[in-house]
Amino acid sequence: MPSIFTRIINREIPAYILYEDEVIISFLDISQATPGHTLIATKVPYENIYDLPHDVASHVFKHAVQISNAIKKAFNPAGMNVLSNAGEKAGQSVFHFHLHLIPRYETDEVSFHFPNHFGNIETETYQSRLEMIKAALS
Amino acid sequence: MPSIFTRIINREIPAYILYEDEVIISFLDISQATPGHTLIATKVPYENIYDLPHDVASHVFKHAVQISNAIKKAFNPAGMNVLSNAGEKAGQSVFHFHLHLIPRYETDEVSFHFPNHFGNIETETYQSRLEMIKAALS
Repeated sequence: MPSIFTRIINREIPAYILYEDEVIISFLDISQATPGHTLIATKVPYENIYDLPHDVASHVFKHAVQISNAIKKAFNPAGMNVLSNAGEKAGQSVFHFHLHLIPRYETDEVSFHFPNHFGNIETETYQSRLEMIKAALS
Repeated sequence: MPSIFTRIINREIPAYILYEDEVIISFLDISQATPGHTLIATKVPYENIYDLPHDVASHVFKHAVQISNAIKKAFNPAGMNVLSNAGEKAGQSVFHFHLHLIPRYETDEVSFHFPNHFGNIETETYQSRLEMIKAALS
């Protein structure tokens, strides 16, 4: 089954499209968590950030800068959250890569809660995992 | 005053550094909202996403793909949130561009709340703002 975003790309369902090129499409999120809430989705239905080819990732974020600035100019928000969720547990509901641009206002209803677990890294398991990351990136 | 991230880059304060090149540095967020919570910061202290040059934005997100995959391999999380906050109202506390990579687990304490305001776009003010965005991007 094509994702809801593929159906938007194919003009099978309507959306308010703000920008489109060969690699990405950008349109209003139908939920409008705040005024101007926008998505940038890839044309190819990569599942999430883990699967993005490097050139596609580069293209997405370069345009995220441009589109964020255009939203800022038009909606004059107090701030902006740029968010991509990978996996259901992380809040992903459409399994086709997309980046949220969520303008923030003085009186909006968006909230994030992040606990503080400073000090957890001093275990052997943790250290060996961090070494794995460094090895994968070197 | 140099930001806390510039001081990490300059090795004036300690951090667990996972990756570094000429453009970015990636290290554990001291708060460890969840195990493996990592930041990617630019070497140049751009304030936030609005100010990123295109080549820097491309570099950041290409590496976000690689670093996300390395964290996934090492920590085996259920999901991942990729987040950048612009402005205090959006939750930004260090005004030096950074992207959060937040691994998510079945039992973590991270939560996001996004209201649904579907239907708001049918006003004239909204429409004129959307036209501004399209004009800025065309």
